[in-house]
Amino acid sequence: MNWLMFSGMSGVLGLIFVGFATVYVLRQSTGNARMVEISQAIHDGAMAYLSRQYKVLTLFIIVVGIILGLFISSYSSLAFLVGAILSLLSGFIGMKIGVSANARTAEAVSNNLNHGLRVAFFSGSVMGVTVVSLGVIGVTGIYFILTSKLDMFTAIQIIPAFSFGASSVALFARVGGGIFTKSADVGADLVGKVEAGIPEDDPRNPAVIADNVGDNVGDIAGMGADLYESYVGSIIAPITIGFAAFYMSSAESVKALGLNSMILPLVIAGIGILCSVFGTFFVRVSSDKAEQGVLLMALRRGVWIAAIGTALISLIAIKYIMGDWEIPWVSYILKEQGYVGIFYATLAGLIAGIIIGVATEYYTSQEYQPTRDIADASQTGAATTIIRGMAVGMQSTGIPIITVAIALLAAYYLARGNTGDARIDFLIGIYGISLAGIGMLSTLGITLATDAYGPVADNAGGIATQAQLPPEVRERTDALDSLGNTTAATGKGFAIGSAALTALGLTIAFIQAADFARAKAGLPPVETSLTLTNPLVLAGLFIGGMLPFLFCSFTLQAVGRAAYSMVNEVRRQWREIPGLMEGKTKPDYARCVDIATIGAQKEMIIPAMMAVIAPLLIGFLLGDAALVGLLTGAIVTGFLVAVMMANAGGAWDNAKKYIEGGAYGGKGSEAHKAGVVGDTVGDPFKDTSGPSLNILIKLMSIVALVFAALIVQNMLIH
Amino acid sequence: MNWLMFSGMSGVLGLIFVGFATVYVLRQSTGNARMVEISQAIHDGAMAYLSRQYKVLTLFIIVVGIILGLFISSYSSLAFLVGAILSLLSGFIGMKIGVSANARTAEAVSNNLNHGLRVAFFSGSVMGVTVVSLGVIGVTGIYFILTSKLDMFTAIQIIPAFSFGASSVALFARVGGGIFTKSADVGADLVGKVEAGIPEDDPRNPAVIADNVGDNVGDIAGMGADLYESYVGSIIAPITIGFAAFYMSSAESVKALGLNSMILPLVIAGIGILCSVFGTFFVRVSSDKAEQGVLLMALRRGVWIAAIGTALISLIAIKYIMGDWEIPWVSYILKEQGYVGIFYATLAGLIAGIIIGVATEYYTSQEYQPTRDIADASQTGAATTIIRGMAVGMQSTGIPIITVAIALLAAYYLARGNTGDARIDFLIGIYGISLAGIGMLSTLGITLATDAYGPVADNAGGIATQAQLPPEVRERTDALDSLGNTTAATGKGFAIGSAALTALGLTIAFIQAADFARAKAGLPPVETSLTLTNPLVLAGLFIGGMLPFLFCSFTLQAVGRAAYSMVNEVRRQWREIPGLMEGKTKPDYARCVDIATIGAQKEMIIPAMMAVIAPLLIGFLLGDAALVGLLTGAIVTGFLVAVMMANAGGAWDNAKKYIEGGAYGGKGSEAHKAGVVGDTVGDPFKDTSGPSLNILIKLMSIVALVFAALIVQNMLIH
Repeated sequence: MNWLMFSGMSGVLGLIFVGFATVYVLRQSTGNARMVEISQAIHDGAMAYLSRQYKVLTLFIIVVGIILGLFISSYSSLAFLVGAILSLLSGFIGMKIGVSANARTAEAVSNNLNHGLRVAFFSGSVMGVTVVSLGVIGVTGIYFILTSKLDMFTAIQIIPAFSFGASSVALFARVGGGIFTKSADVGADLVGKVEAGIPEDDPRNPAVIADNVGDNVGDIAGMGADLYESYVGSIIAPITIGFAAFYMSSAESVKALGLNSMILPLVIAGIGILCSVFGTFFVRVSSDKAEQGVLLMALRRGVWIAAIGTALISLIAIKYIMGDWEIPWVSYILKEQGYVGIFYATLAGLIAGIIIGVATEYYTSQEYQPTRDIADASQTGAATTIIRGMAVGMQSTGIPIITVAIALLAAYYLARGNTGDARIDFLIGIYGISLAGIGMLSTLGITLATDAYGPVADNAGGIATQAQLPPEVRERTDALDSLGNTTAATGKGFAIGSAALTALGLTIAFIQAADFARAKAGLPPVETSLTLTNPLVLAGLFIGGMLPFLFCSFTLQAVGRAAYSMVNEVRRQWREIPGLMEGKTKPDYARCVDIATIGAQKEMIIPAMMAVIAPLLIGFLLGDAALVGLLTGAIVTGFLVAVMMANAGGAWDNAKKYIEGGAYGGKGSEAHKAGVVGDTVGDPFKDTSGPSLNILIKLMSIVALVFAALIVQNMLIH
Repeated sequence: MNWLMFSGMSGVLGLIFVGFATVYVLRQSTGNARMVEISQAIHDGAMAYLSRQYKVLTLFIIVVGIILGLFISSYSSLAFLVGAILSLLSGFIGMKIGVSANARTAEAVSNNLNHGLRVAFFSGSVMGVTVVSLGVIGVTGIYFILTSKLDMFTAIQIIPAFSFGASSVALFARVGGGIFTKSADVGADLVGKVEAGIPEDDPRNPAVIADNVGDNVGDIAGMGADLYESYVGSIIAPITIGFAAFYMSSAESVKALGLNSMILPLVIAGIGILCSVFGTFFVRVSSDKAEQGVLLMALRRGVWIAAIGTALISLIAIKYIMGDWEIPWVSYILKEQGYVGIFYATLAGLIAGIIIGVATEYYTSQEYQPTRDIADASQTGAATTIIRGMAVGMQSTGIPIITVAIALLAAYYLARGNTGDARIDFLIGIYGISLAGIGMLSTLGITLATDAYGPVADNAGGIATQAQLPPEVRERTDALDSLGNTTAATGKGFAIGSAALTALGLTIAFIQAADFARAKAGLPPVETSLTLTNPLVLAGLFIGGMLPFLFCSFTLQAVGRAAYSMVNEVRRQWREIPGLMEGKTKPDYARCVDIATIGAQKEMIIPAMMAVIAPLLIGFLLGDAALVGLLTGAIVTGFLVAVMMANAGGAWDNAKKYIEGGAYGGKGSEAHKAGVVGDTVGDPFKDTSGPSLNILIKLMSIVALVFAALIVQNMLIH
C-alpha cells in the first residue's frame, strides 16, 4: 500500500507543479489591447468548439456508460465515467492554458527569447504534467477502489473500462480536433496563400482565427487526450498482464510477486512524473539568438535529464519491488538477478522511444537529406513533390518498425522467466513487453510539454502578425514555432510508437481475459487457435489491416469536405463584405469557427462508430481468435500508415519552409508553389488522419478487452 | 497419367491458337510508311530495352541457378531455369506481337471499329494464351519429369523452384518495366503537357517514343510476367499442399486421393485454357459506333463465356478426379458429397475475382461517384485532388479485402474434411484455400487478353497522332484505349487479388515444407509456434508489414529520379536541336529510350535484392516462425497498399479524362491542371509501385518455400 501511496502522491505533486506553472504563466503580461482582443477571439472560438464537442461526447459517454452498466457491471460504468471525465479535464486544462499563453508568449518574446521560450514551454508543461498526473491519480484511484471493494479477479476485469473512457474521449478529441484544425488550415491556405496571395495569419483572411483555434483544439487538446489514453493504457496493460502472469501463476515463487507486479507500473509512472517535473527546470537558453540548435538543445537537456533520472530511479524501485524473487530466472542472456530483466524490458521501451524520435527528426527536419530531396523535387512541379514526399513517408516507416520489433523481442527475451514451466516463462516475457510500453511513456510529462509548447508558439506568431508587432518578434516566434514543428513530429513518432506497444499490450491482455472467460465456459484456451494457419485469424488480419485505410479515407474526406465549405465561406465573405480586402472592415471570424466546428462534429461520427463497432462485430460473428487477428492486423498497418502519413506531412511542411528560406528560388517561385501543394496535402496527413490511427488501434483493443467476457460467452464461432 | 496428358495437351492447343492468332495479326496491313516508321522505332526501343534487361537477368539467373545447385539440388537449378526461361519467353512473345500490332490496329481501325478491336484483341490474346499455355506446359512438364526421376517427397520439394524462376523474371520485368514506362510517361508529360503545353504523343516531344515503348515493356511484358508468375504459383501451391494434405495423410481414404489431388490443379488450369480460347471468338462488335458500353459488353461476353464454361467443366472434372471418395466429409454445411466442397472452394476464388474486378471498376471508372468526386475536388486545386484521390484509394481497399477474407473462409469451411481427425480436416480445408487461388486465375487466358489489348490500342492512338491520320481514327483508338484503362484497372485488381491468394497458398506450403524438415531434424512442428502471442511472429509481422512500404518507397523514388533525367534530356534537346519545336527537325528519340532503359536497370537492383534477401535473412536469423509472420505481414499490407495505389492511380487518371471530357471547364482549365497533377502522381502509383507489390509478396513466399529445408536446418532461433 505504501507503493500505491507513492504513485498517488507523485500525481498530486505533479498537480501542485501544474498550479505553480499556471500561476507563472498567468502572471505574465498579455500585451497590448489588440493582442488581448485576438487572444480573446481564439479563446472564445476554442471554447465554442469545446462546448459543442462536449455535448456530443456527453451523450456518447452516457449511452456507453449505460450499456456497460447493463451488460458488464455498474463498477465498469463508474470506471468508464471517471476515465472519460479525467481525460476531458486534462484536455480542457491544457487548452485553457494554451489559449491563455499565446498572447503572453508573444509579449514575452518581445522582451527576449529566453523569456518567450519559458512562457511557451511552461504552458506546454501544464498540459504535459496534467496529463500524466491525472493519469496516475486516476488509475491508482480506480485500482485502489476496485481492489478494496471487489475480489481481485473481478477488479482486474473492470479496470480496463477506465482506459475505455479515456479512449472514447481521445477519439472524439483527436479526430474532431484533427478535422477542425485542418479544415481551417487547409481552407485558409487554399484561398489565402494560394488564391489571393496574402500571407499566412493575415487578419483579412476570415479563416485566420479558426486556424489559430485549430492549433489549440487539434494539436493541444487532441494530442493531450491521445497521449492521456496511451499513458493510461500503457499502465493498465501491465497491470492486467501482471495479474495473469504472476498473481494467477501456478508457481508459488512467482505468485508471491502478484501484487507487486501490478503495482510496479504505477510506481514507474510516478517516478516518471517526478523526473519530468525536475527536468522542466533545465529548459532555458542564455543567449538571445534565435538559433534552432540552441533552442533544441535546451529542450533536449530537459528531456534527457528526465529520462536518465527515471531510468536510474526505476532500477532501484524495481529491485525493491520485484527483487526478492529468488528463482534464478533471467536475465536469460546476462545471467543476472531476476529484477534486472524487468528493468531492461522497461529500458528497451525508453530507448526505443528515443530512437523513434531521432528517426522522425531525420525524416522530417530540413537539416537532413529526405526533406531537402522533396524541396529539390519541387522544381519539377507539384506532382514530383507529392511522389517524393510519399516515398519519404513510406521509407520512414523502416526504422520505427524495426525498432519496435527489436524492442518487443528484447523486452520479451530479457524479462522472460526461467522457471522451467514454458507457460509461466512465456507470460513473464509478455509482461516484459507491456513494461516496454510504459518505459517509452514514462517521461511523457516532459516530452508532451516539448510538444504542446509548439502550438502556443505558433499562435503567438499568429498574434504577432495580426497585431502588427515589430518583425523581430515574428522572427523569434518563428524560431520557436519551427522548433515546434520538429518536436511535434518527434512527438507524433513517439505517440504512434507508444500506441502500437500499448495496443499490443492491451491485445495480449484481451487474450488472457478471453482465456479466463473460456475456462469458465469450459472452452479450450483461445491461444491455441491463434495460429497464422487458422483461416479465422487470417480473415481477421486482413480485415483488421484494412480498417486503418478505411478510417483514413473517412478522415481525409472529412477534411476535404470541411475545408471545401471553409473555402466557400471565405470567398463569400470577400465577395459580400465590402472593404475587407483593403483591410477597412473586419471579417466574420466567428462564422468560420462555426463552420469548422460543425464540420468536425458531423464528420467524426462515422469513424468513431467504426472503431467501437468493428471489434464487437468481428468478435461476435467470427469469434475471439478472429478478433485477435483483427486487432493485430490493425496495429501493424495502423502503425505503418500513421508513421507514413505523419512523416510525409512533416517533411512536406519543412520542405516548403526550406524553400521559403531561400532555396530553389524562395517564396513565390514555382518550386514554392509546388511546395505549398505538398504542405497542403500533408496537413490532413500529419494532423488528422495519421495521428487518429493511434486512437483507432488503442480504442479497438480496449473495446475488445472491456467486452472480452461478453464476446466469449456470445460468439458464433470458436 | 491421362489427366496429365490432358493438361499438357490443353497447353499445346493453346499454343496452336496462339499461332493462328499471330498469323491473323501479322497478315493485317501495317498502314503507310510513316506508321511503319513509328512502329519500327517503338519496336527497336522495346528490343533495345529487352536486350539490356535480359543481360542483367541472365546474370541473375545464372548466379541463383548456381546457388540452388550448390545448396539444394541440381534438379532445383533445372526447374528454376525452365521457369525463368518460359517466363522470359512469354514476356518476349507478348511484347513482340504487341509492337507488331500497334500500327496494324491503327490501320484496321481506320476501316472500321470492329476490325480494330479484333486486331488489338487478338494481339492481346496472343499474350494471354501464351502465358497460360506456357504456364501449364511448364508445370506439367516439370511435374512429370521430377516425379518420374525422383521419389515423390523430393520431387514436391523441388517443384517450387520452377515458380521461383518465373518470379525472378517477373520481378525484373514488372519493376524494371514499371520504372521504364513511368519515367518516360511522367517525364514526357511534365515537360510536354505541363511546361510546353503541347498535346500528348506530339512528335516534337523527344520522349514520345520512349513513352510508347513503355506501354509495351511495362503494361504488356511486365504484366504478362507478373501474371505468369501468379498463374504458375497458383497451380504449384495446391500441388504441394495436396501432397501434404492427401498424399502424406494418415487416413487411408484420404491418402488414396493423393496423386489426384496434385493433378487436379493442372486439370482445372487446362480447362481454363480451352474455355478462354473458346471465349475469345465471342469478342466482336457489329456496330461501328465507338460506344464504351458496346465495347465493354463485347469483352465481357468473352470473359463470361470462358468463366461459366470453366466452372461447369471443372465441376465434372472434379467429380471424376476427387469424387470416388467415400467418407462423408464436406460440404460441411450442404451435406453433399465430398467433391462438391472442392468445387465450391474453386468457385469461391472465381467469384471473388469477379467481385474484385467490379469493385475496381466502380472506384476507377468515370461513370461512378468516386472518380467524379476527385474531378470535383480538382476545382480547388492540386492539393485537394491529391487528398481526395488518396481517400478514394484507401477506401477502395474495403471491398477487395473483405471479399478475399470471405473467399478464404468459404473455401476453407466448404472444402474442410470431416474425417474426425482435426489435423487431416484442417489440411483439406487449407487445400481448398489454395484451390480458390487457381479458381480466380483459371480464365486468365482471356482476362489477360482483355488487359494486354489496352496498351496496343494506346500505342495505336500514339501512332495515329504522330502519323497525322484523320481525327476519327484517333477517336476510335481513344475509345478502345479508354476501355483499356478500365480493363487495365480490373486486371490490376485481379492481379493483386490472385497474388494475395497465391502468396498465401505458398506461405502455407512453406509451413508444410518447414514441418517436414523439422520432423527430420527432430524439432516440434513450426505450426505450434505460429501464434500471435509469439514475439517472434509479432516481430515478423511488423517487419513484413513494413517491407511493401519500403519497396514502394524505392520504386517511387526510382521513377522520380528516372523521370527527372528524362525531363532534363527533353529540355536539353529542345534547347540544343534547332528547329525542333517548329517541327522542322526530328528529336533524338533513341537517346530518351536509352535514358529510361538505363534508369530502369539501375533502379531495379535494390528492390529486387530486397525481395530475395529479406525472407532469407529473417528466416536464418529469427527462424521459420518469424518468417511466416514476415510473409503474412507482407501479404496483408502488400495487398492493401497495392490496391490503394492501383485504384488511386486509376481514379486520378480517369478523373483527369472526365475533366478533359468537358467537366469543370474541360481542357486547359484550372481544374484540368490540378487533374494532370493527380494523374502524374497516379502514374507510378498504378503502373510501377502498386503492381510491383504483387511480385514482392509472391517472390518472398516462393523464396521461403524453395529454401525451406535449408532455413530450418540453419536457423539461429526456433
